[in-house]
Amino acid sequence: MKETIIKQQPIYKGRIVDLSVVDVQLPDGKTSQREIVKHPGAVAIVALDADQQVVLVRQYRTAAERILLEIPAGTLHPGEDPRVCAERELQEETGFFPGKLDSLGGIFVAPGYTTEYIHLFVANDLRASRLDADDDEFIEVSHVPLAEALAMIERGEICDGKSVAGLLRVALQYRAG
Amino acid sequence: MKETIIKQQPIYKGRIVDLSVVDVQLPDGKTSQREIVKHPGAVAIVALDADQQVVLVRQYRTAAERILLEIPAGTLHPGEDPRVCAERELQEETGFFPGKLDSLGGIFVAPGYTTEYIHLFVANDLRASRLDADDDEFIEVSHVPLAEALAMIERGEICDGKSVAGLLRVALQYRAG
Repeated sequence: MKETIIKQQPIYKGRIVDLSVVDVQLPDGKTSQREIVKHPGAVAIVALDADQQVVLVRQYRTAAERILLEIPAGTLHPGEDPRVCAERELQEETGFFPGKLDSLGGIFVAPGYTTEYIHLFVANDLRASRLDADDDEFIEVSHVPLAEALAMIERGEICDGKSVAGLLRVALQYRAG
Repeated sequence: MKETIIKQQPIYKGRIVDLSVVDVQLPDGKTSQREIVKHPGAVAIVALDADQQVVLVRQYRTAAERILLEIPAGTLHPGEDPRVCAERELQEETGFFPGKLDSLGGIFVAPGYTTEYIHLFVANDLRASRLDADDDEFIEVSHVPLAEALAMIERGEICDGKSVAGLLRVALQYRAG
């Protein structure tokens, strides 16, 4: 079932992503081409405050051509531990340090063409951060009850993949627990 | 909060994705660059058989460098209606035609850099398809009880974003209903 890479042609090296075109040999011996976006990976955090409300961020996304409501997230720095990245990004985006941070595994966002893997976390015991917020991000922070966040997913008001995956993971754990 | 595109530099036009580098004006008047992967959009289907088992496909993903277990999915043809695409892809990948196909909305897979939006569907009343399966896809079809699919998400055995989002949406509807 495996595809074997037989040639890799670099197209572009960018700030966040690289693009290459890859020739692969298929299981039947034939060849095909894949366009591969290389991404350093990322983290995303379902953060629950003292009232068990979820902390969400609203920001304009040029690729989506609209404002999206998402869970806090960010790209891994080179060699950065995902847990350290999650603590950093949560503070930069929301002003909260996670007293408790548990892994929810992760997701490949679009394995047909991008290498990006997002490490998902659930954060509890939120404390005011001593880090300054990032000043080059234009985001609005809001707190929403988990049940309302689920209703927003149903209504399509939350339609970011990592946010849907992370929030539903946490919601299902709560219902099971 | 909106970013305004002030310049768009095409880098590459591919078979599935295009890449461009975009200069944007931020809300404070400063400028920044975004790398944008343009993708035609896709569909993904949570298909439930007569025994209420989920139909999953296993395939090698070069970008992820591994075999992934996913819900059936595929890329929109130019101008194709997402519902028609979902019927086509489900038949091509699994051999089933969906007697009933309901929208679950959709997700932006990675709105930080790709335009891809996946339309999610839930399919019921599956019938044997009269279409031939795609012969250039190397996929294995399996049927898994929904509860077992959820356990596989918890254990990280299903870690494809659209599959996690789609399966959890359906699972939560069943628990609520």
